[in-house]
Amino acid sequence: MDDPPGLDQRYLEELQDRLARSAFHTWVGLFVESVGDGEARLGIELQPHHFNQQGIVHGGLISMLADTAIGLALRSRLGPGLTHRTAQLNVHFLRHSERGRLVGIGRALHSGKRMGYGEAEVRDDDGELLARASGTFIILAAPGAF
Amino acid sequence: MDDPPGLDQRYLEELQDRLARSAFHTWVGLFVESVGDGEARLGIELQPHHFNQQGIVHGGLISMLADTAIGLALRSRLGPGLTHRTAQLNVHFLRHSERGRLVGIGRALHSGKRMGYGEAEVRDDDGELLARASGTFIILAAPGAF
Amino acid sequence: MDDPPGLDQRYLEELQDRLARSAFHTWVGLFVESVGDGEARLGIELQPHHFNQQGIVHGGLISMLADTAIGLALRSRLGPGLTHRTAQLNVHFLRHSERGRLVGIGRALHSGKRMGYGEAEVRDDDGELLARASGTFIILAAPGAF
Amino acid sequence: MDDPPGLDQRYLEELQDRLARSAFHTWVGLFVESVGDGEARLGIELQPHHFNQQGIVHGGLISMLADTAIGLALRSRLGPGLTHRTAQLNVHFLRHSERGRLVGIGRALHSGKRMGYGEAEVRDDDGELLARASGTFIILAAPGAF
Repeated sequence: MDDPPGLDQRYLEELQDRLARSAFHTWVGLFVESVGDGEARLGIELQPHHFNQQGIVHGGLISMLADTAIGLALRSRLGPGLTHRTAQLNVHFLRHSERGRLVGIGRALHSGKRMGYGEAEVRDDDGELLARASGTFIILAAPGAF
Repeated sequence: MDDPPGLDQRYLEELQDRLARSAFHTWVGLFVESVGDGEARLGIELQPHHFNQQGIVHGGLISMLADTAIGLALRSRLGPGLTHRTAQLNVHFLRHSERGRLVGIGRALHSGKRMGYGEAEVRDDDGELLARASGTFIILAAPGAF
Repeated sequence: MDDPPGLDQRYLEELQDRLARSAFHTWVGLFVESVGDGEARLGIELQPHHFNQQGIVHGGLISMLADTAIGLALRSRLGPGLTHRTAQLNVHFLRHSERGRLVGIGRALHSGKRMGYGEAEVRDDDGELLARASGTFIILAAPGAF
Repeated sequence: MDDPPGLDQRYLEELQDRLARSAFHTWVGLFVESVGDGEARLGIELQPHHFNQQGIVHGGLISMLADTAIGLALRSRLGPGLTHRTAQLNVHFLRHSERGRLVGIGRALHSGKRMGYGEAEVRDDDGELLARASGTFIILAAPGAF
């Protein structure tokens, strides 16, 4: 894959720490289980406001989890001074969930100089596959980023 | 298009009313401007927790808005006793937004007996195009639904 | 997955045989290596007319291979009297190929009563990943089909 | 859109001419009706080998037409010394066609320094909408290209 070396552990801890303090992550209820080596594992503890009128988890929440999981997986492959931005996201909703926790696992499959590609799966507590997603990411210079 | 007759105005008002009371919509800050005739216009007043670490609106929020806008556009085409569920959503992020309001306009392009298809665009306050989305929806019997 | 029992071997042989005689498959140069148990392996021997102006395999050929591979994988999961039709296809092009053979491997990940979902990867002779694809399929009654 | 100036008419004619002589285009039966100002109109005269086993146009052919139409639309927006490559293509199949001609109309919606985005629709002879597609393209330096 000719992947660049990626972030070392020191930076990953700082990244996780920063995400834990993010207003967006706190609002969504998104927590990072692990990030590194082109893989990210995230979760959302489902709350009543995460469900739609039909009593099932809103698809938008699943898209958000998938997008973030792929992005972080890819992020762990980028060296210092680079960042990523989602250019396109495709999500297939296969099953619906009614309670418990969502688990999102993102994987970086390709990271070039200009563009990255990754996939994610979203599962419920019992490991049932709820959704599969894929995304295209732009890789950008971000002086000072890590 | 052989579209079914769609919801009449009486039901649209009830639908809007129900959405306004939805826990999910309240949590996201999503409001419905109009729904009917295969088109839905929704908005989100941006709050600090809607932004990612880079200070731009999180792509997941845009996906959520697009998904809901297409779904409601399609919903307005379905007769009583039917409902829809997102099977697949594809979003292209073209520009990023840093403040103000998001406007999502969904349109139903096809509604058959089993499946519907629609598109959405997401714009900022100034009318700049932020994202384009398309989605495939399953149409389901929902006795008692309107 | 609650998958239906799928085609038995007898029908798979007949299916392969029929595909080998298909005018479309002959024209494209598509051959079926194997189909069964929710997986299909197909190939294309590259010819000069498969390349674009830049000397690389045309993306449309890769899309065609991915679409067919996912469709056949899903087809092998459907019982007699049912057929499938592509509703949506998403392809990510990761690397380009300049010669040799394309190999497409499709897998059925979900097959319900109304809808199926599958994925494919396309590789070159050396096993390098050229593309990843995913697709949504409608499942239709086809009296007399197998 | 901050689009670059695009190709002038002199180059568009040379581009059309070159496409007409392309081995790939001849093989597919693809003809260019017009290219310019971010729009491309292409057609395919349907032949018996374009149809699948069920007697309907193969989805792969529609994907190929959509991909080429968006690519050329975008190409007409790029200045000399640049070329494009498809990174991702998404196609929704809405209706099937059984005879006549396919018409593909591609439009460039965004062209930045690194990436372009466009959409296409595919119609039959009677103007019925058969498919809608969207694609992400990488923009590359191509010394000597026009």
